[in-house]
Amino acid sequence: MPGDRTTRSRADRVVARVGELAQLSEDDGALTRRYGTRPLAEALDRVEGWLREAGLSTSRDGIGNLVGRLEGERPGLPALAIGSHLDTVRDAGAWDGQLGVLLGLDQAERLAQAAAAGATGLPFALEIAVFADEEGLRFPTAYLGSQAWAGLWDDAQLALADTDGIPLADAVRAMGGDARTIAQAARAPGEVLAWCEAHIEQGTRLERAGVPLGVVTAIQGQTRCTATFRGQAGHAGTTPMDSRRDALLAAAEWALAVESEALAVAELVATVGRLTVSPGAANVIPGEVSATLDARHPDDATRREAVAALSAFAEDIAAMRGVELEWRQDTDNASVVMAPRLQELLGRAVQETTGAAAPRLASGAGHDAAPLSRITDVSMLFIRCRAGISHNPLEHVEPEDVAATIAALDRFVQLLAEAERG
Amino acid sequence: MPGDRTTRSRADRVVARVGELAQLSEDDGALTRRYGTRPLAEALDRVEGWLREAGLSTSRDGIGNLVGRLEGERPGLPALAIGSHLDTVRDAGAWDGQLGVLLGLDQAERLAQAAAAGATGLPFALEIAVFADEEGLRFPTAYLGSQAWAGLWDDAQLALADTDGIPLADAVRAMGGDARTIAQAARAPGEVLAWCEAHIEQGTRLERAGVPLGVVTAIQGQTRCTATFRGQAGHAGTTPMDSRRDALLAAAEWALAVESEALAVAELVATVGRLTVSPGAANVIPGEVSATLDARHPDDATRREAVAALSAFAEDIAAMRGVELEWRQDTDNASVVMAPRLQELLGRAVQETTGAAAPRLASGAGHDAAPLSRITDVSMLFIRCRAGISHNPLEHVEPEDVAATIAALDRFVQLLAEAERG
Repeated sequence: MPGDRTTRSRADRVVARVGELAQLSEDDGALTRRYGTRPLAEALDRVEGWLREAGLSTSRDGIGNLVGRLEGERPGLPALAIGSHLDTVRDAGAWDGQLGVLLGLDQAERLAQAAAAGATGLPFALEIAVFADEEGLRFPTAYLGSQAWAGLWDDAQLALADTDGIPLADAVRAMGGDARTIAQAARAPGEVLAWCEAHIEQGTRLERAGVPLGVVTAIQGQTRCTATFRGQAGHAGTTPMDSRRDALLAAAEWALAVESEALAVAELVATVGRLTVSPGAANVIPGEVSATLDARHPDDATRREAVAALSAFAEDIAAMRGVELEWRQDTDNASVVMAPRLQELLGRAVQETTGAAAPRLASGAGHDAAPLSRITDVSMLFIRCRAGISHNPLEHVEPEDVAATIAALDRFVQLLAEAERG
Repeated sequence: MPGDRTTRSRADRVVARVGELAQLSEDDGALTRRYGTRPLAEALDRVEGWLREAGLSTSRDGIGNLVGRLEGERPGLPALAIGSHLDTVRDAGAWDGQLGVLLGLDQAERLAQAAAAGATGLPFALEIAVFADEEGLRFPTAYLGSQAWAGLWDDAQLALADTDGIPLADAVRAMGGDARTIAQAARAPGEVLAWCEAHIEQGTRLERAGVPLGVVTAIQGQTRCTATFRGQAGHAGTTPMDSRRDALLAAAEWALAVESEALAVAELVATVGRLTVSPGAANVIPGEVSATLDARHPDDATRREAVAALSAFAEDIAAMRGVELEWRQDTDNASVVMAPRLQELLGRAVQETTGAAAPRLASGAGHDAAPLSRITDVSMLFIRCRAGISHNPLEHVEPEDVAATIAALDRFVQLLAEAERG
């Protein structure tokens, strides 16, 4: 139960480890851990150590994912997989990803203590999955870790480059991975019983409802694109205003059009998050500007219509300003529904441990459950976070909400075991 | 004369050296030489070698400027100073700055050959000034080289930092300079007879007039500011559109307001050339955006009114969007008039050597003549450049126009010597 001493002490340990992992960063005084960097490798090593201390066997796959495993009572049965990712966005909060990994570790520790060495004491095995890339901060892709599990890996991705021109192939090597074996990370259907991830809500619905936990119904679809406007660099003092082809002004007009479209279409969120100006000097007219688009909506058709409209706006603006437009779609992920059976079990677990019904909510953010839904039933528990702030150093979860999650997960695993025992 | 064999051969040498110096760059395949970088130090060393080969004595000052000197017949007389700068903008053209330095070197070579060793054969000494910073690409300042000559140096500038947080003091050391002696680089009034710089026009007026050379009448005033918008970073998928405080959208609106203002005020040019987005990830709402403003107008009062209006626009936009604004004025340079006597001599020199009257034109760009006008009479010759393109790799000057400049400078120096002989 959330309020008992053992659960509180487990929560304190999880919170302390969240803080410990948050120290491993590319940046001083800010948390940034991109795929293929040393701080991410160190974070994976740290968690691997804890998994082994708990008595799990561990392994790495070709993309660099870490997996810890406890065997079940019935060797033939598919495994329950719990986990999250350890990569972050730039200047990130400490809870996104890290908390889910450490709550998985906590479940493994609990089960390993209660059963024979290296076993769960449950019918099924338990796997703690620690994905090496989910955010897609560095390369124009995302979910590299769960893509590999889901059999969605494509070797063509090895040539994708980061903004410094470093190819993904180099980053795979830096993670201790092996490009030749990434495809082998794919899990066969029937190998995984269910995926369960506990993750901060990154919204304010739970806070407004006054409850710590919610059950996710679906992940809304997401499209990512890059619009590159190419005009003409020139001298800021000698080029008359009426003969300029300023790429930044085209991009600025388009960014405002993106906002207008998102305000006009209900439930659509659309963001220009990165904008790169070249040459980028105070006294030079911008010659080339690249801007990213991230568009999400629970309905796939609505999202795709909106992206098509935004592409047309970019073309119109480019034509009006005499600049060229290069439009690239980077990713397009359909919306994903969580398994009703697992939603039901999570709902019961939350109700029984917190005494309150768990709100059902759709996820605005993408999660590893999206690719993983190709190979197994997926589920997610959302945890209240302060003021809905996420992808920001102010991201925060109260320790009592961590305890509530631990209690709910304990019960969820128990309910699932009962269901499997039949 | 522009068409004779000697002048053409001198022009070919200047053009070859322009290409040679353009190889010294921070970037592969593009010309970028910021103050305090190794490629700039190498370019200064290369030119110093050529100055010494020609028989000039050379020296460096505290900020890292290079000066070559030939003595005159009358030791007490102030020196004629010719030159330009060797720093560049990002992804620059090869002619801006470099050409003026190499045309000065060419005059020194001509005079040194014709007279006794180390002397001009003219009443006055000749100094070739090679300034280490004019563009101000790296630090929020400009004209570091000529500021030092003009006695405008302020030690407070040592703390200015580049975008990587490196202070100017470190860059001074990297240039082989010495912060303690920068103030001593100041030239006393009466020490310099006149400043003359030959520079590409960076506009299309000479090309349209069908002539190679024009005489500059004035440099228009310039104000540089930085507007920093601070909103709230957040998750691009979970933050509803109506509760965002997106710093990029505020900056985009302001950049478009800058354009509108410049289109509305006759002769005003205003540019947002650099825009830095933080955290700068595709799936994160921009929390902080810095944007530069470069505003220029021939009339100082009109320019300052326009900048005040643009600052007020930024405040209004920030207030409307619930973001904070930090407004900083980085530099403010009044317009500068070229010495009428030197304009007259340059006009005669161009007329006599090209057979065509030299157009008189105001400079849209800032130049070292602006700070130098505090200590001496200043003058500039503008050279036709292709399509007016500048601050761009497509920047180009025809070799015959280089030859025309050489002939005009030969005659200008001769006319100035005649005037000084009285």
